[in-house]
Amino acid sequence: MAQSLTLTITALRERVEAIFLNAGLNPVQATALTTVIVAGERDACKSHGIYRIEGALRTVKAGKVDPRAIPELQLNEGSAIVKVNAKRGFANAAFELGLPAFAKRTSEFGLAALVINDCTHFSALWPEVEAVTKEGLAALVMCPSYATVAPTGGNKPLLGTNPFAFGWPRKDAAPYVFDFATSVAARGEIELHRRSGRSLPQGWAIDAEGNPTTEPEAALAGAMLPFGGHKGSAIGTMIELLAGIMIGDLTSPEVLDYLGTTTLAPFHGELIIGMSPEAFAAGRPGDPFARAEKLFDAIVGQGARLPSQRRFAARQTSETQGIILTEAEVEQLDRLRELGLEAVS
Amino acid sequence: MAQSLTLTITALRERVEAIFLNAGLNPVQATALTTVIVAGERDACKSHGIYRIEGALRTVKAGKVDPRAIPELQLNEGSAIVKVNAKRGFANAAFELGLPAFAKRTSEFGLAALVINDCTHFSALWPEVEAVTKEGLAALVMCPSYATVAPTGGNKPLLGTNPFAFGWPRKDAAPYVFDFATSVAARGEIELHRRSGRSLPQGWAIDAEGNPTTEPEAALAGAMLPFGGHKGSAIGTMIELLAGIMIGDLTSPEVLDYLGTTTLAPFHGELIIGMSPEAFAAGRPGDPFARAEKLFDAIVGQGARLPSQRRFAARQTSETQGIILTEAEVEQLDRLRELGLEAVS
Repeated sequence: MAQSLTLTITALRERVEAIFLNAGLNPVQATALTTVIVAGERDACKSHGIYRIEGALRTVKAGKVDPRAIPELQLNEGSAIVKVNAKRGFANAAFELGLPAFAKRTSEFGLAALVINDCTHFSALWPEVEAVTKEGLAALVMCPSYATVAPTGGNKPLLGTNPFAFGWPRKDAAPYVFDFATSVAARGEIELHRRSGRSLPQGWAIDAEGNPTTEPEAALAGAMLPFGGHKGSAIGTMIELLAGIMIGDLTSPEVLDYLGTTTLAPFHGELIIGMSPEAFAAGRPGDPFARAEKLFDAIVGQGARLPSQRRFAARQTSETQGIILTEAEVEQLDRLRELGLEAVS
Repeated sequence: MAQSLTLTITALRERVEAIFLNAGLNPVQATALTTVIVAGERDACKSHGIYRIEGALRTVKAGKVDPRAIPELQLNEGSAIVKVNAKRGFANAAFELGLPAFAKRTSEFGLAALVINDCTHFSALWPEVEAVTKEGLAALVMCPSYATVAPTGGNKPLLGTNPFAFGWPRKDAAPYVFDFATSVAARGEIELHRRSGRSLPQGWAIDAEGNPTTEPEAALAGAMLPFGGHKGSAIGTMIELLAGIMIGDLTSPEVLDYLGTTTLAPFHGELIIGMSPEAFAAGRPGDPFARAEKLFDAIVGQGARLPSQRRFAARQTSETQGIILTEAEVEQLDRLRELGLEAVS
């Protein structure tokens, strides 16, 4: 009989980190991956929680990421661009390395960019957005993905699901954070429809001939569509330009060419733009943080929600009551720790 | 009998500029407004062409913009933020003043921001996006508007139609440029439906009670909806935060409070982020401009369109064959020149 297990966040951290260390990741990589996976599980964001461990291990096993990479910080005097080369390791360790210098330059210059190159991208963008807001800074984050989305008016995959994320720091509350795919749905959602035999909503996808389809199989063989029609398509294209081409890293079609599959974590770069509300607002009337609260109150006051509130509520529960895993999940964690890369195909 | 008139771009410039000078604008303000209005007309973007002259004059007459303002450049050594105070004049003159210093800082630091404060905003964002791309830089531009859009899940106007624009410089072609409202439709489109007695498409608006409506009158009394559901709503909110609150300028609800109407040009600020592809791509493989062309070819190659292509085609026609105005339009230009502020109510 399945029995659930309640773990503290720290206890889950230890279990996840042990898996990565046993699988041959160096401590820098293992710690950074553990942080985002535990954050996902803690926030009841199951699609970015422990479920992702296997994908990371599969990517290691396929030789598409260096599990022992040591990221390298590249600072140029007088530049507002901070670069970190992930050395073909996961983006997460590179982000952690770059964050302090990036936050410092953002505060000094008013705005700055953190560019991560040559990384295997893993996890949602919100953990990074939140980390930047903790420095009292606003953040805009984007990256390509695999070519699975057709531009509006087109008929085949070209753009990625290219996530676009933003954060605004709040003094006495969890930050304002959004993080979404620029496709109308995430690829995983189409896969879930396929598994459960459900049709897709109209407007999600086209088939291999470029015609609208509600069949998950046909959609997976065809292309997904951008959110919001030509506007989302334009934003997705902008992300290819800024967070692929401009930073000298792969675009979504190049990622797919390189990997040959969408089942491994993608190899590309990432662009993070930081802005200091204090620097921007200096000399102007009003405190930007207090004014933002008025805006949030007006949103919530008319019954609309701020993004990420479900995650923050789940986080509070996890922090006070621990994280509940099913028996199957606990067994899987044990299995992954024991077998390491042998556990994945 | 109505007879059309063909004018060269220069001849149209002279006519428009004379109107503004006769109406009491100083040369700095008159020239900058003329540039964007003629650009709109030249690009067959009639909603931002000479049709807008009256709105500008009405705003002057209402005392909501200073027609003789001299914008002021505020440079801080070592900062990547270039600020221009429009001194309650139009944004356009402020933008022109700030552009050279902003472009210089963007090239030096890799990225920089141009903040325009205390301006009356006038015209689309694409003329400014294009001006930045002419410097070989990528640009991200945004500003608030009047509160006419309900956040997703809400039931009353709070956000503006908050335009979001982007440009990427191309070496042998017109730049990649998009510029769109973050509402599903522009307010003018709802007004056009009202005038022609047509119902609105589903999903454009809600009535004053917060219920979905396809009636233009009910929509104008209610609120418009963001494009792309909660994603567009989040982007619209981000624009209030960055291009209203962060830069110490009015948010869309504050703009509406200040003006008390949506029929005058709005008073608020504007945020422009510039990025140097050369600085970002330095030391990385591949030329970013050549790689971008490959992406554009792939988009066009599958039958999709790049944004703004219709405008660029119209521009080419205008440049070679002149701009065609109807007799009524020519008469209106003459009338506006003769009567100045007396011509508008």
